[in-house]
Amino acid sequence: MAKWRGKNCDRLLSVILEANELKTIPRMGWRVRGVTSGESVAEHSFAVALICMLMADRIEEPVDREKLLMIALLHDLPEHMLGDIHAPAAKILGEEAKEEAELRILERLFDGIEEGPRYVKLWKEFAERSSVEGRLVRAVDKLEMFTQAYQYESAGNRMLDDFWGWEGNMKDFSFDEVRRLYDELTRLRESDRGGD
Amino acid sequence: MAKWRGKNCDRLLSVILEANELKTIPRMGWRVRGVTSGESVAEHSFAVALICMLMADRIEEPVDREKLLMIALLHDLPEHMLGDIHAPAAKILGEEAKEEAELRILERLFDGIEEGPRYVKLWKEFAERSSVEGRLVRAVDKLEMFTQAYQYESAGNRMLDDFWGWEGNMKDFSFDEVRRLYDELTRLRESDRGGD
Amino acid sequence: MAKWRGKNCDRLLSVILEANELKTIPRMGWRVRGVTSGESVAEHSFAVALICMLMADRIEEPVDREKLLMIALLHDLPEHMLGDIHAPAAKILGEEAKEEAELRILERLFDGIEEGPRYVKLWKEFAERSSVEGRLVRAVDKLEMFTQAYQYESAGNRMLDDFWGWEGNMKDFSFDEVRRLYDELTRLRESDRGGD
Amino acid sequence: MAKWRGKNCDRLLSVILEANELKTIPRMGWRVRGVTSGESVAEHSFAVALICMLMADRIEEPVDREKLLMIALLHDLPEHMLGDIHAPAAKILGEEAKEEAELRILERLFDGIEEGPRYVKLWKEFAERSSVEGRLVRAVDKLEMFTQAYQYESAGNRMLDDFWGWEGNMKDFSFDEVRRLYDELTRLRESDRGGD
Amino acid sequence: MAKWRGKNCDRLLSVILEANELKTIPRMGWRVRGVTSGESVAEHSFAVALICMLMADRIEEPVDREKLLMIALLHDLPEHMLGDIHAPAAKILGEEAKEEAELRILERLFDGIEEGPRYVKLWKEFAERSSVEGRLVRAVDKLEMFTQAYQYESAGNRMLDDFWGWEGNMKDFSFDEVRRLYDELTRLRESDRGGD
Amino acid sequence: MAKWRGKNCDRLLSVILEANELKTIPRMGWRVRGVTSGESVAEHSFAVALICMLMADRIEEPVDREKLLMIALLHDLPEHMLGDIHAPAAKILGEEAKEEAELRILERLFDGIEEGPRYVKLWKEFAERSSVEGRLVRAVDKLEMFTQAYQYESAGNRMLDDFWGWEGNMKDFSFDEVRRLYDELTRLRESDRGGD
Repeated sequence: MAKWRGKNCDRLLSVILEANELKTIPRMGWRVRGVTSGESVAEHSFAVALICMLMADRIEEPVDREKLLMIALLHDLPEHMLGDIHAPAAKILGEEAKEEAELRILERLFDGIEEGPRYVKLWKEFAERSSVEGRLVRAVDKLEMFTQAYQYESAGNRMLDDFWGWEGNMKDFSFDEVRRLYDELTRLRESDRGGD
Repeated sequence: MAKWRGKNCDRLLSVILEANELKTIPRMGWRVRGVTSGESVAEHSFAVALICMLMADRIEEPVDREKLLMIALLHDLPEHMLGDIHAPAAKILGEEAKEEAELRILERLFDGIEEGPRYVKLWKEFAERSSVEGRLVRAVDKLEMFTQAYQYESAGNRMLDDFWGWEGNMKDFSFDEVRRLYDELTRLRESDRGGD
Repeated sequence: MAKWRGKNCDRLLSVILEANELKTIPRMGWRVRGVTSGESVAEHSFAVALICMLMADRIEEPVDREKLLMIALLHDLPEHMLGDIHAPAAKILGEEAKEEAELRILERLFDGIEEGPRYVKLWKEFAERSSVEGRLVRAVDKLEMFTQAYQYESAGNRMLDDFWGWEGNMKDFSFDEVRRLYDELTRLRESDRGGD
Repeated sequence: MAKWRGKNCDRLLSVILEANELKTIPRMGWRVRGVTSGESVAEHSFAVALICMLMADRIEEPVDREKLLMIALLHDLPEHMLGDIHAPAAKILGEEAKEEAELRILERLFDGIEEGPRYVKLWKEFAERSSVEGRLVRAVDKLEMFTQAYQYESAGNRMLDDFWGWEGNMKDFSFDEVRRLYDELTRLRESDRGGD
Repeated sequence: MAKWRGKNCDRLLSVILEANELKTIPRMGWRVRGVTSGESVAEHSFAVALICMLMADRIEEPVDREKLLMIALLHDLPEHMLGDIHAPAAKILGEEAKEEAELRILERLFDGIEEGPRYVKLWKEFAERSSVEGRLVRAVDKLEMFTQAYQYESAGNRMLDDFWGWEGNMKDFSFDEVRRLYDELTRLRESDRGGD
Repeated sequence: MAKWRGKNCDRLLSVILEANELKTIPRMGWRVRGVTSGESVAEHSFAVALICMLMADRIEEPVDREKLLMIALLHDLPEHMLGDIHAPAAKILGEEAKEEAELRILERLFDGIEEGPRYVKLWKEFAERSSVEGRLVRAVDKLEMFTQAYQYESAGNRMLDDFWGWEGNMKDFSFDEVRRLYDELTRLRESDRGGD
């Protein structure tokens, strides 16, 4: 463990320094498909939060934007310690075992932070899809993956075909606006291919 | 301009794809000091937003967290096109000229987006320090730079000495909690050095 | 999953292509300590195998070098899918859950390969420390980590202090020659520091 | 500012150390189009100078090669501080404001250097297209961009289409030999595509 | 020379530290074809050793797997000092001059190591194709290059066409199983292209 | 060989495209000492040419600056194919064998180029130290290495100690101004260390 996890450091400062490690965690799905200098989890999280901000007013159900943005910023925070375990590995490890570990990492991270329980509770809404905000972050999490895939393809990568048809994503796309943007994106992608 | 800026792309999707370029913009202050694989503007922005979230309840004045997080996500967005012009260059270019360009880039980015004017207005609160939320993002923007500098120093870099005494930062540290964390950080840094 | 995992590819070729992904898996312990372009798991595995080769004749117990080298090449193979989960995360996830997942990944990888069961069996000797060869790979796995840490420190990194005293390593250093080299290394490290 | 900009350093040495920062400045046009480990401004400047050397005897007007090479080496020097502001951003910032800043950076860099005024004067010939050598560096600056674009496309990138038709480049291609090479390059590119 | 080559370091430890430099040597054939973050010689060596392990039982002639794996681990070791001189350069330098230098580097590396002469002898079997194990490593050395080329192509690179027809490789493919896998690979590559 | 070396490409364009590969050749001396994203040969060559420009008027003997800059741009051009063979490897390979290969690579590169023989002749003046310009590029080649070493040390690297005392450099420092700058640089380095 890095030295800021030691006893002599202010708790809040320690949270900030630890969370900063997200900048060094690569998104593994890209790497194993040949994207060598791909995005970090911090970069992905930024994009998810930004897209959530852009979507908040366009969702059919009422959305609490403050809560939404907090969940977006928190959603991958446990990966600062666990790393980014991509889909096929998560399946083998067991989604439950993975989420259990993530929860414990988050509790450890926020231990001693007054607002900690609130952050943990918000993260659970994401993990358990138990609020509209949690479900929307989940949908945008996937949408952001597709926009990034599209851009890596534009940069040349030819190994991302299997992403696009992935049935599993569809169930998270229960918001019309998210679905609309996904459809727009696949249309843009098709049109690029036609003109190739 | 990248192809998603063309006419045939949905405006909101185009904003998302363009904003994603922030992942590719390096923070220049680190690079010219020998940090070769340093953070991107997107990574910095993520950290600023996260720290803002952690600070919101700890500020002496009442803070609107929704607004705060939106400003944090927006504060460096113009750099997706302008790049990250670091302090000495900004001085020569003129802070005003730089901010004027940033404003026009933001207006162009959000042109045709219904919520665009609100985003531009929020960004101005950051640029002009005209709200407590705008000023807090500004303070955290600096604090985040120091936490990152501390970590690059821990990773070995010896060229960041001149950052720490930089008087110019102090005026933005008008919030007690920000100042407290900065002091904690310098204390941690001193203690590392003593043990070197 | 990358396309070579599909049905139309020769099984042995598929193993080779999948295993090749180890070149893209970064060793996470370095990254979170600020080593941005650190070694991959494939690079680590190469070094472990090479050191094992150099040590085989110097161990007090008789060692089967063929078996030793096979275990060395296999020992981190499951990480091609799981990624490199570093020590504090493995603790939270549970060593058992992690090893169980690794075993299943290895079985999946070698499914349909005639020699597969032998490879899985050899890997278990590493996981369970059930043969002298398995225990020696385990010891070298740690020794290699220290030689790499020493070189990252030489390249400037100052965040690796906590590695060196790590008690947990000691129990794996039950081979005199491994222990001797570790002692030599710490002596070299001390002498560098004295001359700093 | 890096420490070699301080008072206690020989002026000429300081120029050398500052100019060396060009090795760390990425060419931004490539980055925002998905070229993650693209060339630096120093690499581009080397190629421009080399091509200028190769072209000097092939231009219809008499060319002073010494002057030509000096201008080539100087042409992007201000970017050591300003960074590489790519075309769409330069447009918004205003070409004039950008060049004014570049001039001031160059004057600051060479302040106290006896030959400084000559270097500044040569750079102005580039900026203002006021000599054949200045105009030739300008033309080669664009040609070099196209050769690099061609090679990034060969390496897989598909986002550089919009570069090739760019009308704005044509006016700088007033030298027959530069134009001839550009035509050769587009022919090579077309033939690659045909065989794709 | 790095400091561990000095007098005060245990010889075996020095071999380990020097050999570790293989992690920093890029395979040059990829770099000059636009693969910017390509594999290191250590990564390649790992893959060669692993494939050798997978092939040992499938070769028509009897193969000593211990010897085979040792040769695989040793085959590119001289590049830790010489770097990776790719094919066209080796031709100009002269294969003989290159191998002579490699031999001397290896002898220097293992000087003072009791088992050194055995390692040098094994490497010569690779260089001179004087044993079935030496010839098999040579064949796998090429096969591994093709599997990596296939994956870089999948990741987008379009500059590797000239690799595939390369006649020179064929003579090393004298083992049926190696040849079979090469044919499978070209078939997979063709089928990818058809579906493009 | 990359495709632009084929028959259907204009010779001059082919030279430009091949020479561009210098951007991808890492300077090996840094890599084996732990500088992972170090400069390319093209970056080094740019800096050498720029320093030569700055020095030309400050040398006691008359210097032809046109010739000087041409030699600086040409001096490492053969490395586009040979790669950067660092000092200890060059010693083992034999300086003569290395230079002979470099000459043949240069002749091949410029074969069919009208001005080719002049470029080859200029390069020989560097290789053989047979003109003041050739000797000055040689001296600056070393000086540039030291300025870069100083900056990598400032960025944290601790493995470059052995560079500084290297006696072999001194004989190339026969120009007062080059020697003066080297002395200034060592003074700056000492003063940094004192304040560490």
